[in-house]
Amino acid sequence: MGIGASAALPIFSRAAQRTSPPQKHQPLKMGMAGYTFVNFDLATSISMMKRINVMSLSIKDFHLPLDSSPEKIKDVITQLTSAGITPYAVGVIYMKSKEAVDQAFAYAKKVGVDMIVGVPDYDLLDYTEEKVKNYDIKIAIHNHGPMDKLYPGPKDVYDRIDKRDKRMGLCIDIGHTQRTGISPADAVSQFKERLLDLHIKDVTAATNDGQAIEAGRGVIDFSALIKALNKINYNGFCSIEFEKDMKDPLPGIAESVGYFRGVMKTIDQ
Amino acid sequence: MGIGASAALPIFSRAAQRTSPPQKHQPLKMGMAGYTFVNFDLATSISMMKRINVMSLSIKDFHLPLDSSPEKIKDVITQLTSAGITPYAVGVIYMKSKEAVDQAFAYAKKVGVDMIVGVPDYDLLDYTEEKVKNYDIKIAIHNHGPMDKLYPGPKDVYDRIDKRDKRMGLCIDIGHTQRTGISPADAVSQFKERLLDLHIKDVTAATNDGQAIEAGRGVIDFSALIKALNKINYNGFCSIEFEKDMKDPLPGIAESVGYFRGVMKTIDQ
Repeated sequence: MGIGASAALPIFSRAAQRTSPPQKHQPLKMGMAGYTFVNFDLATSISMMKRINVMSLSIKDFHLPLDSSPEKIKDVITQLTSAGITPYAVGVIYMKSKEAVDQAFAYAKKVGVDMIVGVPDYDLLDYTEEKVKNYDIKIAIHNHGPMDKLYPGPKDVYDRIDKRDKRMGLCIDIGHTQRTGISPADAVSQFKERLLDLHIKDVTAATNDGQAIEAGRGVIDFSALIKALNKINYNGFCSIEFEKDMKDPLPGIAESVGYFRGVMKTIDQ
Repeated sequence: MGIGASAALPIFSRAAQRTSPPQKHQPLKMGMAGYTFVNFDLATSISMMKRINVMSLSIKDFHLPLDSSPEKIKDVITQLTSAGITPYAVGVIYMKSKEAVDQAFAYAKKVGVDMIVGVPDYDLLDYTEEKVKNYDIKIAIHNHGPMDKLYPGPKDVYDRIDKRDKRMGLCIDIGHTQRTGISPADAVSQFKERLLDLHIKDVTAATNDGQAIEAGRGVIDFSALIKALNKINYNGFCSIEFEKDMKDPLPGIAESVGYFRGVMKTIDQ
């Protein structure tokens, strides 16, 4: 997957836009954020992903600890790929020391992915940037809503990375973004040049009190979001992170995936 | 629910259409076709419906046999209504004798619904019409695809009831309709004046070999269907009948409900 592909798209002048057919966006890709499966072992998580036919995963550490042996890493990757599932990232990984940054990048390299979804402390951003350059591995910094002391909303990420290496960007969590009062559609448009990953969910309210809920039952405008993603020709993943009913999540995951696909399909017609 | 409400809508002239705002359709209502729960008792079926927030049911006989005592009927209706679920019909009920027709209408009256989803033999249609008039209970005749000797497609129903009492109509099963090679969107438009109920599903192919699959993964054009239903201002139910993974159907039901809601919502925006 190329870096900054959306930013590299040709920009048509208004005159060219009038005479050329509309630029057809690429289809959005769905994935799963591993945290969804916090209460399940890898085999059960794989069977759930197969059931909903979502075959790309951001691996969370409870399925593959950061200090795993090469044998353990190989075993987990083999379990995933033999089920047809592609690991596309690792995370969310919290980084509060240089050692944690070192570990995260070494881990991502051993796992064989080109992106970390992570949360580095502010004072580690310089060091994180060095690692991005050394490893050629992207970091998508994840925002966690009004109570997050580091990165409540996507702007809190963007403002700290926009002058840095272009492989430093955002994993916009649309639920936490909506909870800060920002529309996810606006956020993906505004920060499109650094948008690397998305966590897809719905929330009951556009405030700190908003609770996780099945996509389509909450306050997020998915139609506006998907139109915005199509407009910027987003080429990353739309990864479901379902945080309601976490001990029996499959029906809610399935409803959310179905809703997202229904909106996508209808917009594309 | 009024009879033939769609037929009673005012018809605007072209001139009036140009000067009036567009007639806003009413929101589509989702329901469940009881057959989906063939492997589950009523309590489990109720818990699945609550999980997906679909609160209207066409009761199938395995949950409430046609020869049930008044006490049994009261018990089942109480279980449903105390869970917030409204029984809106009974069926599908097959009728191969006058006695079966008698039993079906007496049963529907005792259950307290105003519609039977049923399949009366051709030579019972006169007798069925008498019962419709005597009981003031509608019959929505269900089509079952290419191998059905009585009613393969919706036209096979329509042609046998269009001169009869207006309370005789169609339950268009969109999967079986698509398997006969007919687009569900075309079918609901063509037979709108007698459209009383819908069984919602998807199929893998528009042929007899088409298999049940989660909504959105098959060949049915849900966007076209929902636009057609909005255009005719359909006021019946869109009832999910999920026939894949019938021993563990909830994820597929949830995905199908999510997809249908996603398409609906996007069209309405």
